[in-house]
Amino acid sequence: MYKETNLRSIVKGISWRFFATATTVTIIYVFFGRLDLAVAAGVVEATTKVVIYWAHERIWQRIKFGRKRIEPFNLWFTGLPLSGKTTIADKVYEELQRLDIPLERIDSKDVREMIPNIGYTREDRIRHMKRIGHLIQTLQKNSVSTVCSFISPYRKARKIIREMVKNNIVVYVKADIETCKKRDYKGVYQKALKGEIKNFTGISDVYEEPKHAEIIIDTEKISPKEAADLIVKYVKRKYIK
Amino acid sequence: MYKETNLRSIVKGISWRFFATATTVTIIYVFFGRLDLAVAAGVVEATTKVVIYWAHERIWQRIKFGRKRIEPFNLWFTGLPLSGKTTIADKVYEELQRLDIPLERIDSKDVREMIPNIGYTREDRIRHMKRIGHLIQTLQKNSVSTVCSFISPYRKARKIIREMVKNNIVVYVKADIETCKKRDYKGVYQKALKGEIKNFTGISDVYEEPKHAEIIIDTEKISPKEAADLIVKYVKRKYIK
Repeated sequence: MYKETNLRSIVKGISWRFFATATTVTIIYVFFGRLDLAVAAGVVEATTKVVIYWAHERIWQRIKFGRKRIEPFNLWFTGLPLSGKTTIADKVYEELQRLDIPLERIDSKDVREMIPNIGYTREDRIRHMKRIGHLIQTLQKNSVSTVCSFISPYRKARKIIREMVKNNIVVYVKADIETCKKRDYKGVYQKALKGEIKNFTGISDVYEEPKHAEIIIDTEKISPKEAADLIVKYVKRKYIK
Repeated sequence: MYKETNLRSIVKGISWRFFATATTVTIIYVFFGRLDLAVAAGVVEATTKVVIYWAHERIWQRIKFGRKRIEPFNLWFTGLPLSGKTTIADKVYEELQRLDIPLERIDSKDVREMIPNIGYTREDRIRHMKRIGHLIQTLQKNSVSTVCSFISPYRKARKIIREMVKNNIVVYVKADIETCKKRDYKGVYQKALKGEIKNFTGISDVYEEPKHAEIIIDTEKISPKEAADLIVKYVKRKYIK
């Protein structure tokens, strides 16, 4: 949220004066046919009215009429480990920040500093999702939109989020499990296959494909940049007017 | 955050026209001494300029100059169990909401739905504080101010919060331990004395009085209402101009 400084009101007054006085001088000239007096009247008008304009602006700062709260949205990226969620979500976040709307990035990794992930069983994951839901709600209450990336493998958990938040946009980042394994630069799939990581989505735990995703990104077909452009366009069209 | 609707710009244009045309008509009358023509020019001016004013407003919506981000603050209520933190913090939150600034209430009880409190040892409490600190940071990044109430018995934990957040205002809600025990409507002091609750602040765990509290509320001397007024006054003077 911003506040309008005194200086902004003064500069607006001067900028407005330029257009307004030009109009006045023209009108007087048309009515009276005397350019000298028209210009003189313009000069007197310009100086008095900058002050009155400034006062008018300051009064309007206190009036709420016609101010609309920005509607927050929640972009929810879901997909297999290493499907490309974080990469695309980061790009989308970067693009959306330029629009100068209140916006927060929530990634499964970073959020753990705030909300500890207590375990990886089905119940633990669902409980964790509810907590994330509370965080999004808190932000939305203050007009902050969110860009979230979580594997979020269970339909039930994604449904909880959808029910908790406003303007939910599920982005399913679709990638073949074999492709993800090939991208395995962190070695997590390797470890999971060896049984060193338990309940690993795609290996030892299920990933339930979304049935109602607003956007599906097929990472075999389009690049992260193209995907981000597509998502940003969607958000702009639906939520930023 | 708000956006300015088209309607607001139009109504501002009309409201401005009232003051501006009155000025113009007066100036023309002074210069030319003819009220009939002055009024006619005024009528033509009024109609053209509402439109130009509207366009001028819409252009200025896109200009960032002179817009200042609102500085968020963090009110941090600390004190013994049942000292009156929550009561006063609730009143302060209610008052501050009228100022129409982005504001969030964080109470030790309610926040557990989002950030689970894993234990009550010194380390657990400090870890919990850090998580709360992350939450406040996230909100502050989006210009949201916070009203927090936590027993927060350790100097170290309060120091962590002070270092993590901007514009921290510690409010020490001071009450005698005997007074708190008398107020024990929840029966928690009773249980703690019997040893049924472990690490209970004031009984089986220490409360380290703040040395650098910005505001000290002596609940033996002033009422919650008076305390709230005093705190709101402080916040307005320092952070809301």
